[in-house]
Amino acid sequence: MDKIPILRLGAYLLVSIQVDLYDRLALTLEADLVQMVNKTGAKGVLIDISAVSIVDSFMGRIIGNIASMSKILDAETVVVGMQPAVAITLIELGLPLKGVHTALDMEKGMNLLKTMIGDSSGEEDQETDPDYDDTIA
Amino acid sequence: MDKIPILRLGAYLLVSIQVDLYDRLALTLEADLVQMVNKTGAKGVLIDISAVSIVDSFMGRIIGNIASMSKILDAETVVVGMQPAVAITLIELGLPLKGVHTALDMEKGMNLLKTMIGDSSGEEDQETDPDYDDTIA
Repeated sequence: MDKIPILRLGAYLLVSIQVDLYDRLALTLEADLVQMVNKTGAKGVLIDISAVSIVDSFMGRIIGNIASMSKILDAETVVVGMQPAVAITLIELGLPLKGVHTALDMEKGMNLLKTMIGDSSGEEDQETDPDYDDTIA
Repeated sequence: MDKIPILRLGAYLLVSIQVDLYDRLALTLEADLVQMVNKTGAKGVLIDISAVSIVDSFMGRIIGNIASMSKILDAETVVVGMQPAVAITLIELGLPLKGVHTALDMEKGMNLLKTMIGDSSGEEDQETDPDYDDTIA
């Protein structure tokens, strides 16, 4: 496993993190992602971490970095699927993921992105659950 | 890593396979996926294998199984992002993935799914549709 695939879906990029983000893999992901944002003109990045059960300060920082990098390339980042234990650990580590938007699941994250970007062309049937968590800030 | 996350997006389920599908993981994925199709009433399943560089007959069979299982639950399966080497290996192994639809990337796969689900009253034996709308600018 030498890189995490980045899936393009319309104006959005999806990343599903399923493995430990050790140093090289994390840096590759950062580089690939900003390159993809630049190449595709993506307006939003969705990062699914539902398969991540253990998080450390390095990974927390990487997620923050990706959000900051995307932001200056004019793309919003939403982290979805965080397990409760991961949220607990992040706060206990003193990493409140400032500037990173979060949502409970993929669908809510996509709706949040659409709202943020102002894209009203909702193709999927609307779930009508506007109670997703907004920015932790 | 004890399970591969299944992401729900509207009427579709996305699975990004990034690790070797050894026995237990593959069976868990099969079970989770049919359960999710059943629970969510998903009409399409997108399986991204762009991170898979090595394929064996077991994995080929699992993908075929998932497609067949989804099919009898009334959901179409599209496999996207197959690397050329994987395609070569599958054919050399005598596994042409019959009944599995394929597309080059996530976006084309999604368009193919939308076309298939839109035309679900019509013919079913179209293996791949090279004329789906490609909107990459």
